[in-house]
Amino acid sequence: MSNENSINKWDYYEIKLHGSSEGNPFTDVQLSAEFTCKNRTIKTEGFYDGDGIYIIRFMPDIEGLWQYETESNLPELSGINGNFICKEPLNDVHGVVRVNNTYHFAYDDGTPFIPLGTTAYAWVHQDKELIENTIDTLTRNAFNKIRMCVFPKHYDFNHNEPLMFAYERNSDGIFDHYRFNVYFFRYLDGLIAKLRELSIETDIILFHPYDRWGFSSMASDADDLYLRYIIARLSPFRNIWWSLANEYDIMPTKKMEDWDRFCKILFEYDPYNHLRSIHNCHPQNRYDHNKEWITHACFQYQEDDLTAIGKWREQYNKPIVIDECGYEGNIDHGWGNLPPQELVYKSWQFIMYGAHACAHGETYYNDEEILWWSKGGILKGESPARLAFLRKVLEEIPYQLNPSKKWSSWDFKGISNEDESFIIIYFGRKQPSFRRLTIPDGQKYQAEIIDTWNMTREPIDQIFQGRCRISLPTRQWIAIILRKVD
Amino acid sequence: MSNENSINKWDYYEIKLHGSSEGNPFTDVQLSAEFTCKNRTIKTEGFYDGDGIYIIRFMPDIEGLWQYETESNLPELSGINGNFICKEPLNDVHGVVRVNNTYHFAYDDGTPFIPLGTTAYAWVHQDKELIENTIDTLTRNAFNKIRMCVFPKHYDFNHNEPLMFAYERNSDGIFDHYRFNVYFFRYLDGLIAKLRELSIETDIILFHPYDRWGFSSMASDADDLYLRYIIARLSPFRNIWWSLANEYDIMPTKKMEDWDRFCKILFEYDPYNHLRSIHNCHPQNRYDHNKEWITHACFQYQEDDLTAIGKWREQYNKPIVIDECGYEGNIDHGWGNLPPQELVYKSWQFIMYGAHACAHGETYYNDEEILWWSKGGILKGESPARLAFLRKVLEEIPYQLNPSKKWSSWDFKGISNEDESFIIIYFGRKQPSFRRLTIPDGQKYQAEIIDTWNMTREPIDQIFQGRCRISLPTRQWIAIILRKVD
Repeated sequence: MSNENSINKWDYYEIKLHGSSEGNPFTDVQLSAEFTCKNRTIKTEGFYDGDGIYIIRFMPDIEGLWQYETESNLPELSGINGNFICKEPLNDVHGVVRVNNTYHFAYDDGTPFIPLGTTAYAWVHQDKELIENTIDTLTRNAFNKIRMCVFPKHYDFNHNEPLMFAYERNSDGIFDHYRFNVYFFRYLDGLIAKLRELSIETDIILFHPYDRWGFSSMASDADDLYLRYIIARLSPFRNIWWSLANEYDIMPTKKMEDWDRFCKILFEYDPYNHLRSIHNCHPQNRYDHNKEWITHACFQYQEDDLTAIGKWREQYNKPIVIDECGYEGNIDHGWGNLPPQELVYKSWQFIMYGAHACAHGETYYNDEEILWWSKGGILKGESPARLAFLRKVLEEIPYQLNPSKKWSSWDFKGISNEDESFIIIYFGRKQPSFRRLTIPDGQKYQAEIIDTWNMTREPIDQIFQGRCRISLPTRQWIAIILRKVD
Repeated sequence: MSNENSINKWDYYEIKLHGSSEGNPFTDVQLSAEFTCKNRTIKTEGFYDGDGIYIIRFMPDIEGLWQYETESNLPELSGINGNFICKEPLNDVHGVVRVNNTYHFAYDDGTPFIPLGTTAYAWVHQDKELIENTIDTLTRNAFNKIRMCVFPKHYDFNHNEPLMFAYERNSDGIFDHYRFNVYFFRYLDGLIAKLRELSIETDIILFHPYDRWGFSSMASDADDLYLRYIIARLSPFRNIWWSLANEYDIMPTKKMEDWDRFCKILFEYDPYNHLRSIHNCHPQNRYDHNKEWITHACFQYQEDDLTAIGKWREQYNKPIVIDECGYEGNIDHGWGNLPPQELVYKSWQFIMYGAHACAHGETYYNDEEILWWSKGGILKGESPARLAFLRKVLEEIPYQLNPSKKWSSWDFKGISNEDESFIIIYFGRKQPSFRRLTIPDGQKYQAEIIDTWNMTREPIDQIFQGRCRISLPTRQWIAIILRKVD
């Protein structure tokens, strides 16, 4: 055992044990531990990390003395106990992101989480230099969530072999779906730890259809083993979100009962109750996001008509996350050739309709076939700076903002917080030179003109009340922030 | 009588008669004439033009000797006969525009008519200098159709009194809805004749709601009298289209049976069967365009989702004309602050979905409150040049183009003529740098890249066949024209 005796809240404590490596430790050995602090007891599973090493990770969510005791069918791993101190969280650590007030997200400590998501499906499967570039890019951008796969991706611009696979393979190259490649998972641990350090939520895509290696069509018990392994290994990272699938509806080998079973496994074995979602391909194959295991409804949605978002809010009573709407780029696929203006416009629109903007991705063609949306690397596009600006604007406003009929019209959308002390109105593709607004009797507002594309903010030196007229710059993509004054 | 003895086909012949002006000639005198050429006889009504002058106009559609005889309840107007020669049409005169092949338009002589419409509701009610500016602007632009009202307009930016009214008024300023102001109508004749000279179809809006003078709420018999007067007077202009109303659904004084009665009057008294339509305000108040009297379905439609157009084509089996979708401008109304790029984009999209692009209008704010969309004047915007380019592109292609499933994909629309010798593919807001297409076996095409915004055309020096890749410029609003080669 090489345990430190204290950790910070929402980091994880790791118990490392040595035991027999005979047989197949991945399937033969059951290992778990109960962690107790005050009147709180949490049970979590351990996992085999190769070379006779067994690991149990645990992320405490209350400060104080935690005691634990292990249990295993391998005698040398069972009945081991110990304790550690959980101290206050480090600066800028706020816990796990959870659903908050039906449609929103917040960390455990109540800090609002306003997701700004990007997509790099297979970045962990690229060579080390490219992975370093990706991390560097993430460091220098404002994304606080990333969609990424555990399994490698086979698709246009994605024909290279991955660095490592999640499974061991025999001398014939056949994968053993019951023996994990711990070198891959150690590497993945490190990358997720790095994202945690960058305060980036990791939307882990557990299954996906773009596969030439067979990971999308394993036997059911192999699927289940994989889930339990990954839960034991990754759930102690506070920055994990579970995405059951990318485009579940084009995976012919999986049936609805498979997805339901996977969910039950997540439900049962993830002690931290991380966020869980699923992602569709075709808009008509909308998953039943009312299912209990779904914490927030994710949509691939490329349509221009966003009135559906309002219906989804009513139908599901959960946060609505649009995590694919077409990427900034210029490839021939219609989902990969949005101009940056369109992606930024859509991201603002998602917010205005009451959804979350997690749909960034970049697909500019290059002969090296290194496209951010899958392989990561560097970003060349013009949308990331504008999306960072969007995040900044939202984070400065007391949350939470919801669509407001009162502050909307047939031709623009308005969102406000509950007491209407802050309102955002967005004119999208329109280019008004002025707008008349009627401020309710007895109320006064200050106004600020936001150019969401040019990233400028201009406070207007005037108090608005009653029937008033706000001058605007005859440009597209303009928003107004109204702030109530006494 | 002061008749010339020959006219050109599709111009009109005018019989001028003198008779009593006692009583109210507008209501008391019935006057008509039968015109006969070979085995063809057409009856048309005359109208009173003041000062004891009665006029019968007739537009012949076959060449040869036409004979006529008048009939009237005023003895001096009855039983008058005569004849004239109808000669070949003048150059560039093709007759009346009619529905052609279900979804399209063509002139009587078979020449395709590809409408490119603008809107200047009240231009005929402005001062003479402004009217001259409007005509000058129309002369220098490519619009071949204009939406315009008979009655003046009362609305934002439209508070001036019209130059003249359609009715006489008494010394108290009360309008007599049974006595037309012939000075106004003579003036209107002249303007429509001017439009005819410019080959601009005049989409005459017969009723509309934006009224402070009472013309939108006259008695039923006054409405009917007005329609018969205007039919007698204006239907002999070959460039007339009848638009029953602008925004019929926000005219509370008119019921559906009124619209039906109006239609019957048009049906019965217009001997030339000019095109007839009606125009809605709210999208949910879609008129039943299946009604027999409707020749083509007009829509105000501001939505981004254009899949409705395909449904309307199936539902109505008539040409679909989008004649309002938001105007280029910067006023505060959401229908009047589109950037030019958006109006041009929408116009192309209408074509690609199988509708006609008649929705131009311009609403740039100015302190003089002279906005083209209502008052005419000069155009300042950037869309007219691009719309002219659109018309030019379409007119160079052998008509008729219809949406093609085969040449469309989920992410772009393609239209083709029947033998697929010409295809247009449009990428709209997307910015692909290339596109793969599969040309059917044994066929070969040339390709031309159209930048619909920058108005450039670049033929590609290459023959495309089989599975091929076409390079594109990573810009929005790009179209490809494919031309079959042997």
